[in-house]
Amino acid sequence: MAVILGPNRYGKAETRVVRVVRDGGVHHIKDVNVSSALSGDMDEAHLSGDNTAILPTDTQKNTVYAFARKYGVDQIEDFALLLARHYVGSQPAVHHARVEIEEYFWDRIPAQGPSGERHSFVRSGREVRTCVVHHDRDGTTTVLSGLKDLVVLNSTGSEFHGFAVDEYTTLQPVTDRILATEVSAGWRHVSDGSPFGKSYSEVRRCLLEAFAETHSLSLQQTLYAMGRRVLETRGEICEVRLAMPNKHHFPVDLTPFGLDNPDEVFYAADRPYGLIEGAVLDDDAPAARFAWE
Amino acid sequence: MAVILGPNRYGKAETRVVRVVRDGGVHHIKDVNVSSALSGDMDEAHLSGDNTAILPTDTQKNTVYAFARKYGVDQIEDFALLLARHYVGSQPAVHHARVEIEEYFWDRIPAQGPSGERHSFVRSGREVRTCVVHHDRDGTTTVLSGLKDLVVLNSTGSEFHGFAVDEYTTLQPVTDRILATEVSAGWRHVSDGSPFGKSYSEVRRCLLEAFAETHSLSLQQTLYAMGRRVLETRGEICEVRLAMPNKHHFPVDLTPFGLDNPDEVFYAADRPYGLIEGAVLDDDAPAARFAWE
Amino acid sequence: MAVILGPNRYGKAETRVVRVVRDGGVHHIKDVNVSSALSGDMDEAHLSGDNTAILPTDTQKNTVYAFARKYGVDQIEDFALLLARHYVGSQPAVHHARVEIEEYFWDRIPAQGPSGERHSFVRSGREVRTCVVHHDRDGTTTVLSGLKDLVVLNSTGSEFHGFAVDEYTTLQPVTDRILATEVSAGWRHVSDGSPFGKSYSEVRRCLLEAFAETHSLSLQQTLYAMGRRVLETRGEICEVRLAMPNKHHFPVDLTPFGLDNPDEVFYAADRPYGLIEGAVLDDDAPAARFAWE
Amino acid sequence: MAVILGPNRYGKAETRVVRVVRDGGVHHIKDVNVSSALSGDMDEAHLSGDNTAILPTDTQKNTVYAFARKYGVDQIEDFALLLARHYVGSQPAVHHARVEIEEYFWDRIPAQGPSGERHSFVRSGREVRTCVVHHDRDGTTTVLSGLKDLVVLNSTGSEFHGFAVDEYTTLQPVTDRILATEVSAGWRHVSDGSPFGKSYSEVRRCLLEAFAETHSLSLQQTLYAMGRRVLETRGEICEVRLAMPNKHHFPVDLTPFGLDNPDEVFYAADRPYGLIEGAVLDDDAPAARFAWE
Repeated sequence: MAVILGPNRYGKAETRVVRVVRDGGVHHIKDVNVSSALSGDMDEAHLSGDNTAILPTDTQKNTVYAFARKYGVDQIEDFALLLARHYVGSQPAVHHARVEIEEYFWDRIPAQGPSGERHSFVRSGREVRTCVVHHDRDGTTTVLSGLKDLVVLNSTGSEFHGFAVDEYTTLQPVTDRILATEVSAGWRHVSDGSPFGKSYSEVRRCLLEAFAETHSLSLQQTLYAMGRRVLETRGEICEVRLAMPNKHHFPVDLTPFGLDNPDEVFYAADRPYGLIEGAVLDDDAPAARFAWE
Repeated sequence: MAVILGPNRYGKAETRVVRVVRDGGVHHIKDVNVSSALSGDMDEAHLSGDNTAILPTDTQKNTVYAFARKYGVDQIEDFALLLARHYVGSQPAVHHARVEIEEYFWDRIPAQGPSGERHSFVRSGREVRTCVVHHDRDGTTTVLSGLKDLVVLNSTGSEFHGFAVDEYTTLQPVTDRILATEVSAGWRHVSDGSPFGKSYSEVRRCLLEAFAETHSLSLQQTLYAMGRRVLETRGEICEVRLAMPNKHHFPVDLTPFGLDNPDEVFYAADRPYGLIEGAVLDDDAPAARFAWE
Repeated sequence: MAVILGPNRYGKAETRVVRVVRDGGVHHIKDVNVSSALSGDMDEAHLSGDNTAILPTDTQKNTVYAFARKYGVDQIEDFALLLARHYVGSQPAVHHARVEIEEYFWDRIPAQGPSGERHSFVRSGREVRTCVVHHDRDGTTTVLSGLKDLVVLNSTGSEFHGFAVDEYTTLQPVTDRILATEVSAGWRHVSDGSPFGKSYSEVRRCLLEAFAETHSLSLQQTLYAMGRRVLETRGEICEVRLAMPNKHHFPVDLTPFGLDNPDEVFYAADRPYGLIEGAVLDDDAPAARFAWE
Repeated sequence: MAVILGPNRYGKAETRVVRVVRDGGVHHIKDVNVSSALSGDMDEAHLSGDNTAILPTDTQKNTVYAFARKYGVDQIEDFALLLARHYVGSQPAVHHARVEIEEYFWDRIPAQGPSGERHSFVRSGREVRTCVVHHDRDGTTTVLSGLKDLVVLNSTGSEFHGFAVDEYTTLQPVTDRILATEVSAGWRHVSDGSPFGKSYSEVRRCLLEAFAETHSLSLQQTLYAMGRRVLETRGEICEVRLAMPNKHHFPVDLTPFGLDNPDEVFYAADRPYGLIEGAVLDDDAPAARFAWE
């Protein structure tokens, strides 16, 4: 037996950058959170503390800021590609780079007067947009786009019955229930050349519409319908992965108070919660390799 | 010296209720979080564990559910008033009730087909709407409305200079900076009969517009302008209190990389942060009494 | 009617400082989070943006760092007193200072070898120690010490019955239940000259012992017993305020599975929760004035 | 192209159970959070909403409670093994079960009197103990133990220099710095028959001692030393994976205030942070298969 070093990586996480574009008096802002992780020929740093191969995480932070100035930040996938290629291309010891970016959305404040709608913003509170880009020195690049914190609810159109029953089952079948979830989704692009802005808004629309339009017999069925809708609509996407907690809403028993409850008053529970996870993909999707790591 | 019992209260916090109104096939939802706290003649519970005067917090939870069924949940201030008056009116030992409600907003999903836009919702992620109602058996009722988690940013139109300087001062005066904050606000109604729905949306509009339209020499000036705008616009409001953290955005020094930074690339810091708090009120506002407790 | 400025204050929140004392090769660390808030003659900053009276929050941050170097950080109350007096004493416009400090605890790692137990630490995860100091230019100083995040549980010795019953009551009386809470406590010192280190550990011991040794008929009774124990034991304290959420542990009904449950298996619920708040004080305690703000 | 279902699983997450053992008047408590996820022949639930193969997540919750009563909860790995084997063994459609458990630690309160040290507890606030068990119907079982939220700090004995330099490097080499991190660790057992209680405390000791005793030239070196120490000490472990954020502590520049700072006053930063991840394993470790999923 000998002790060996297995897979490893290191980087700077959560470099928070706000990029302002000053288009005359009209400003545009981009609010992102960038995390990079590098791997490659890093054994000596682990074995002996020889840091020759280590580009400090502090340098990675600086690179994010400098690139934000030099190249701007438009689509987060494109910015992540720039960074990932830079690290692999400029550092011989770096064989692989993973760059993850979160984007937070802002709306303009509809203000009056000379400054009206020019440089004032309010956080929209919509979902967080995400991406994960991998670039390897063998030339392979993978791009995932995604979102998280998208909370949706159907107040009807959801059933759950016909399930397996064992000695620990007490759940009653229902033909009408609230179905609510907080969608975390990632989707894999066929290439690194998708029109990422348009793609994001269209995939988001597919997910929302499929959630709304699917009469659901199980959250699994809804999950699959959402992934399928994306794949059938967006040719640039070859795989969708979804994690959807079942945010239980239980009808309250009001009979002790002489009241009925025709599915009108619900208790929104925190824990425990169901958790449904699944992938939906094209049967001819290219190999994912490290895309989902 | 003798040990005595000072101010005290008890209640059920964070009863999460989703109320569905089924208007034919079109559903409406209301998503609230209710906390009640009762006080009065509760000394024996503390001194001897005699609970004769204690309406259990479990009963308070049940009351929220039952009232949601019996009366519906429209404006949160009205629902809080109902609950507060019920506790004081029905329990001799309860001399005072405080009810706090948070409301979370949902938008309709613009879906197609037979279910289109009828019962599918997405959390809007906008701010949380709040209220705090006090009702005392002496007949006094106070109503605060409010909001929190409203994050706003001006990318220009903000200066900071002319400040006091001492031996620990290193800050340089600036004539252009990002001003960003997360607004927590409460506003006091003159009476318990305001049109709470309309009032909320108008006060929110005043706060946003005043934030956007004020050329700011200090966050204090912006805070005051926001409160003043509400008071001058909305006759039903007599006091506004605001807590506004200064969410610092520091321009990154890019000169080590041969780059300038004309206020385009900012580091969004987490801690420490400035914190500005203040009240703005009408000089003839009625006494606040316990309104802000 | 005229719009006026009400109570206001501003400051730097959450300046995180770790202070290392190097006693030869043996190190000691102090890990604190300092928030200061100043008030006084600040009207013009609000009304016109004239910042003449404003000592920037950035300067307050610098002062914390410089004082940590000059005076060290021993008992947090003493460090807060230093800061509060400095601001009021050195800035004519500052009439009042409030300084709040949190302290996080670390234990030594019992290591071997040359570095053994000399400079290696592990966060103890115990409660957070807190203080709030006010100093006013009229000469009044108030000192609160406190703690938060102290989670305690009695697995028996707790009953709840004899409570008020109304039409919304479904709770059954019980003579044995789990009583669990997360204690947030503050206690007021008679003077600013208490032996703060010793006082803290003794008050903490009083709170824990009174929680453990009180056979409880209500959480209110336990709260009062805890406050009373402190006051009767520690002459330097004149008031204790406690906020104690009732962290409900519900026995699970296992009868559907042919099992009894003699109070052995509990579901630990998150929300809603009871919340019990109360003050216990000496009848001859000096006026609290702004101490609890 | 056809749309197909990829990897999927579902289950109940975060079932919070407190198990009390009443040993006469002396009580013992176990506080755990159980998450199960099942996979197998679940295609129809996704494709058509036919739930025949689905054991509801509600049933999984009930099973946790019932098993806690029938079998007790001693070592979390053993409890997870029981659950995982039950699901695979009793449900033909379930081909694979993953059970994850977190355990929270409590200390006894050293109380006096008749109840002294018998049934009163305080959350210790130490790290969270974790495990992940997989059981597959092909007979393979994997067991990971782990911990998270273990925050450690060396106030000296850490250097960082000799790193790669590029055009974006501004970091200066240092020969003395604070090294602080929050350890998240998992370790893989050779078999499912380890003495899990003893193993946990010994692995934890190895991690802490190696952190304290390693003079560090990089956090990577410390990470490797920690993993290596476990493998060399504990024969039942064949792989260790560590994720260690570099919780930066920056010495504050006090020269503007006429003060030096001989590594005594540090600013504890939140974001961004370095993140170092790595695996250390025996070269003859069995294949991990799904152990780390």
